[in-house]
Amino acid sequence: MRSVSIVGIGQSDVGELWNRSAREIAYDAVSAAMAEANIETADALFVGNMLSGVLLDQEHLATLIADYCGLTGIEATKIEAACGSGAAALRIGAMAVASGYHDVVIVAGLEKMTDTVGKDTTAGLATAADAEYEALHGLSFVGLNALIMQRYLYEYNVPLDAFAGFSINAHRNGVNNPRAMFQRAITLNDYLGAPVVATPINIMDSSPVCDGAAAVILVPSERAHEFTTGHHRGAVQILAGAGATDTLAVHDRRDPLFLQAAYDSSQKAYGQAGVRPEDLDLFEVHDAFTIMSALSLEATGFARRGEGWRMAQDDEIGINGRIPISTMGGLKSRGHPVGATGVYQITEIVQQLTGTAGANQVANARLAMAQNIGGSGATIITHILGS
Amino acid sequence: MRSVSIVGIGQSDVGELWNRSAREIAYDAVSAAMAEANIETADALFVGNMLSGVLLDQEHLATLIADYCGLTGIEATKIEAACGSGAAALRIGAMAVASGYHDVVIVAGLEKMTDTVGKDTTAGLATAADAEYEALHGLSFVGLNALIMQRYLYEYNVPLDAFAGFSINAHRNGVNNPRAMFQRAITLNDYLGAPVVATPINIMDSSPVCDGAAAVILVPSERAHEFTTGHHRGAVQILAGAGATDTLAVHDRRDPLFLQAAYDSSQKAYGQAGVRPEDLDLFEVHDAFTIMSALSLEATGFARRGEGWRMAQDDEIGINGRIPISTMGGLKSRGHPVGATGVYQITEIVQQLTGTAGANQVANARLAMAQNIGGSGATIITHILGS
Repeated sequence: MRSVSIVGIGQSDVGELWNRSAREIAYDAVSAAMAEANIETADALFVGNMLSGVLLDQEHLATLIADYCGLTGIEATKIEAACGSGAAALRIGAMAVASGYHDVVIVAGLEKMTDTVGKDTTAGLATAADAEYEALHGLSFVGLNALIMQRYLYEYNVPLDAFAGFSINAHRNGVNNPRAMFQRAITLNDYLGAPVVATPINIMDSSPVCDGAAAVILVPSERAHEFTTGHHRGAVQILAGAGATDTLAVHDRRDPLFLQAAYDSSQKAYGQAGVRPEDLDLFEVHDAFTIMSALSLEATGFARRGEGWRMAQDDEIGINGRIPISTMGGLKSRGHPVGATGVYQITEIVQQLTGTAGANQVANARLAMAQNIGGSGATIITHILGS
Repeated sequence: MRSVSIVGIGQSDVGELWNRSAREIAYDAVSAAMAEANIETADALFVGNMLSGVLLDQEHLATLIADYCGLTGIEATKIEAACGSGAAALRIGAMAVASGYHDVVIVAGLEKMTDTVGKDTTAGLATAADAEYEALHGLSFVGLNALIMQRYLYEYNVPLDAFAGFSINAHRNGVNNPRAMFQRAITLNDYLGAPVVATPINIMDSSPVCDGAAAVILVPSERAHEFTTGHHRGAVQILAGAGATDTLAVHDRRDPLFLQAAYDSSQKAYGQAGVRPEDLDLFEVHDAFTIMSALSLEATGFARRGEGWRMAQDDEIGINGRIPISTMGGLKSRGHPVGATGVYQITEIVQQLTGTAGANQVANARLAMAQNIGGSGATIITHILGS
């Protein structure tokens, strides 16, 4: 199989982009990535997206984006794995290049969640859960995460404010990301005074509903130099990628406090890349809720079970910490346009590994991991990238 | 790249399956395909589906299907390209095997369109069109096809009954397909007396709204023998696959009567397989509407422009004709569960190429093509298979 590298990245702003339609937001990201790689067309486009059908009455999304971006004619396919859609699209883009089927592939992630006339975004997000056994009975997506967090607090006898550090770290990093939705720091008092969304999850534990798109250009590694001549960034190689699943419904899990799919996919990725957790310079976690950050760190080998929250409290997750996470603001501060998030994580890792992350640059970053989660841990995709 | 073969197929019944939920219908197809290939698990599952979010409030569909089919843990991803979702999933399954990322891959197509409480299936199907520039103005999906057909009748001065042969052929073949929704023949009088849906399209020009799922098992060709020991069918090789797109909106096309994406993808496929149209023993066309059959035959080199309908009138498309199409009933008679259709086409071709097509067997079938269309020709995926 051919090794695959990233030779261009693009991001739209993240936020309530009420003056930009979905196709325009996608264009912002795709055109920027194409400009970086100095390409005018590509062989294929894969678009990670979860909710265009439910919220925008628009399926057939990838062909629309290809058309709007001036790429009419190329193969185009939408990829859906709930909030893990972005990384799922990257997996498939990498397969397309590794197989030799295509040479130049655009992978985009796109979500338009605000300004959706007559649609219920909370109900839309609940389509990530089991419609017949979870959502139908009134469980919202934040409700499911709240049940998991409540169980964590009880099982490990952890104080309610144990998770504050995840949110504080994300917001501190978001300050320096010009694309981030929330470019402001928060204090422990802000966290403690935040309104509760679903007990025990408060608004500072939660990533926001928002719009955004990100894109990367994939090529065979042996051809990467063709696309990075005079490039301010250079290429980044995909060293490993693996997807794993768990039961869709949380009540079917053997242990709802262990992200089995995070363990499985990260173990596969470590094996493919030949690395251990301690070799990584940074880790973009899927901090849709603070509880997910703790569980991810535990399942991927960075903390013992029940102790992931201590890493936030001890600030081991800051830019200069043992394993920096959410380095450009994470889902909490950069924002979580669900189908785009997995691609944002990759673009931010490319920034870090090419020394173009600005004020949030992790010193000498050479090896980074991203983990993108669909549903309450039912689909988890792990990538390891190296410069 | 590794060559990819199909070593097992499965189909659910097609129809208004009011007593089967989406996951059960998928199970019918996936479990049958796994039984044929004699496998108990797989590396990955790709599910082609268009409307689970819009009609069933269920995204994250592939993980649900993996879970329900006893495959919890494997990589699972939903693939969407409107009514071309099934073939798009096959494309990606083939990439997964060809790249060496996976060895045993299940590709399923699934759609549940009936018995969807409180949902509007017509509005759902319109999400294949441009939501902002077509559907918002009241154009339904059949309405778009009616505009194209009306233009065809005018431009080529063709009589209104010119398309009857496509419907008669499909129904004649559906009689012998025990999975088909309509297992009965129709006459020219049935066609002429059929109620009009959207002028000039009548109900016999139109494929039905229905439920169904189909699945295939993909492995590297060099390992196919491991899965076909004692097999009643044997393996079928994917000789070529190509996807192409056109403008999403019909009004943006240079020529709405030429399926540019059908031409582009079939030309690529012919080149990959090293064959010409006249080498093919059968062709599963995307006869969602009879006009699409005529346009497909014209764009793929079987008829001159404006003359595709003559092939139906002269019965060149029957089982013993020059190029048999819709050999197991096509979308019209077998049924068109939209995201599943592209995989049904492939399972039917496997039946033909392995001599297991029963009464509809095309004699000495060795080489076959399938073409799956998303939207009104905006996404077209062509596969060529050989035994």
